[in-house]
Amino acid sequence: MSDSVVLAPRVLAVASHVVSGNVGNKVAVFVLQSLGSEVAALNTVQFSNHTGYKQWTGTRATALEITDLYNGLKQSYLDDFDMMLSGYIPGAEGVTAVGNIAKGLKDKFQHSPGKFFWVLDPVMGDNGKLYVAPEVVPAYKALLPYADLILPNQFEAEQLSDVKIVDLDSLTQAIQVLHEKFNIPHIIITSVSFTTPDHPPSHLSVIGSTMTSGRKARTFKITFPSIDCYFCGTGDMFGALITSRIREATGAVPGLRGRASWLSDDDVPATELPLARAAEKVLASMHEVLAKTRDAMPAVMERTWAELKAEDRDHKDKAHYVKSKAAELQLVTNLDSLRSPSIKFSATKA
Amino acid sequence: MSDSVVLAPRVLAVASHVVSGNVGNKVAVFVLQSLGSEVAALNTVQFSNHTGYKQWTGTRATALEITDLYNGLKQSYLDDFDMMLSGYIPGAEGVTAVGNIAKGLKDKFQHSPGKFFWVLDPVMGDNGKLYVAPEVVPAYKALLPYADLILPNQFEAEQLSDVKIVDLDSLTQAIQVLHEKFNIPHIIITSVSFTTPDHPPSHLSVIGSTMTSGRKARTFKITFPSIDCYFCGTGDMFGALITSRIREATGAVPGLRGRASWLSDDDVPATELPLARAAEKVLASMHEVLAKTRDAMPAVMERTWAELKAEDRDHKDKAHYVKSKAAELQLVTNLDSLRSPSIKFSATKA
Repeated sequence: MSDSVVLAPRVLAVASHVVSGNVGNKVAVFVLQSLGSEVAALNTVQFSNHTGYKQWTGTRATALEITDLYNGLKQSYLDDFDMMLSGYIPGAEGVTAVGNIAKGLKDKFQHSPGKFFWVLDPVMGDNGKLYVAPEVVPAYKALLPYADLILPNQFEAEQLSDVKIVDLDSLTQAIQVLHEKFNIPHIIITSVSFTTPDHPPSHLSVIGSTMTSGRKARTFKITFPSIDCYFCGTGDMFGALITSRIREATGAVPGLRGRASWLSDDDVPATELPLARAAEKVLASMHEVLAKTRDAMPAVMERTWAELKAEDRDHKDKAHYVKSKAAELQLVTNLDSLRSPSIKFSATKA
Repeated sequence: MSDSVVLAPRVLAVASHVVSGNVGNKVAVFVLQSLGSEVAALNTVQFSNHTGYKQWTGTRATALEITDLYNGLKQSYLDDFDMMLSGYIPGAEGVTAVGNIAKGLKDKFQHSPGKFFWVLDPVMGDNGKLYVAPEVVPAYKALLPYADLILPNQFEAEQLSDVKIVDLDSLTQAIQVLHEKFNIPHIIITSVSFTTPDHPPSHLSVIGSTMTSGRKARTFKITFPSIDCYFCGTGDMFGALITSRIREATGAVPGLRGRASWLSDDDVPATELPLARAAEKVLASMHEVLAKTRDAMPAVMERTWAELKAEDRDHKDKAHYVKSKAAELQLVTNLDSLRSPSIKFSATKA
């Protein structure tokens, strides 16, 4: 009987939880589940809504509470994870606590190469600004040698590599430093703010790399049309999608998933990497979900205004809340875009 | 543009959260999302795992924290819910806090009949025993007049109605009391422990009723084969499925959703009630998911044992944890059973 049953991979997702809306684990859990993972969701905060609204209520889990929850899993043999995805964690102590979970899992499965894979999204800041305490940066740096795939944006990549990124050359250098100094097998820089000659201004890029056995970068680039609207939770959606897709893409290469960190042979070129295949699918899903979210925004705003009491409708300064709500990612209505996007992007050599 | 966009109904789900496994909101959120609802998830606890393991870690939200989270939603106009599903709430003060949320929503939408619908699962105990503090019972009783649909098991129905249930007659009497005394429009008794002549011992029943305008019960029964295995989270799966399906079934009757509590005309017989249609679909999904969970159990147990360290494998007294884990509902691998079950059960007059 056991032979005919396909068991879902077990993924530990550590991130924030919001009651209403779609950021953090609220995105990651649904996306991972929709793509077939059995998800253990450790929520680092419970907030009413995301902080982009500029007002919220709720509580943060302390580092001790995070550790305690994980110890609860361990004592009942619930820590047999295949993958872990970590996102926003409040404070340096929390980052260290989550890092200890990942280290423990690496250690537990040290004699089963490829059994456990950690996707680390080092959430620290964006557009030149930290939005966490400064001591979070060294806390993340200390964890980098244990990560299998990291997902910094351009600013976070600068913080971790200490390389100032201004163009494709310096970006490639930052990636090389991250591979070499911290032994990080896979890297995707999830947003790039400079433009390049082959990069139309209405487009965005991600740059990824899987290192060789000699820790040399193999960089690919995927360019895709940007959607002129600010959404929250896109990084979390990227993290959850890549976690599912990297497993799928490496599973398609015989023997690869039995290798530590799912590292491709040295002769695999950048554009043929499973990481490139995975990222192509991720961006296709994201582009569809974001386009559909943008298209639904007027209807969501209309519905929200219609249900407001007259006195609230007059507060035109409250439009920020209505707009923030309308920009929440439309996930449940776009399950097909998550599972099997119809558009296609292709990786090129960076 | 707004006209072509179908917006998902907004459902507030208030229940417990477990990191690993599938009970409470961990079930409800995924099931509601899979059936197309935009879910706001207010977690009343965050535990490592469900209490059936007999050991767990984690924290409970206080009544004040629950209220505070909800106030956070209100201040950003995120409280425009179409439905609310409430499950396990720790303590009488928490029950009252959640009740105040529902009352507030009822009040907010009092001039829009049928806009808001509250599904209340009064989680208190089972098989003759309370597993909450005694003061939780009157706290729930005080909320009954605000509920649109309640989902007690046989024991909870006894507690709320003060009618001792020993057979179908006394069960029907309890339902009549709940309609009449508390003005509860829809009731489903989700588990019935007595046997009746037409009820084979290998089968279980649920009994449901939608009251008439004169508060008279219209009872139907659905009998289905039992699965000889103890699962946790089945009540939560029932609650989430019926929340989706009652909306769907009432939506199929022109004008019904514009009526307070979606109450059918008095001449609709018990077996033709939208509640009966909804419950039939719910039980079909549940039967498929439970059968598939049972079928996967040996493989899950095998995998868990295989990954345990040798010294843990020798602790045969630890088998309880391994078995509890194997009995966790298999949801993500059975999305089709949730969305479109293939088997069919039919309601009969009770």
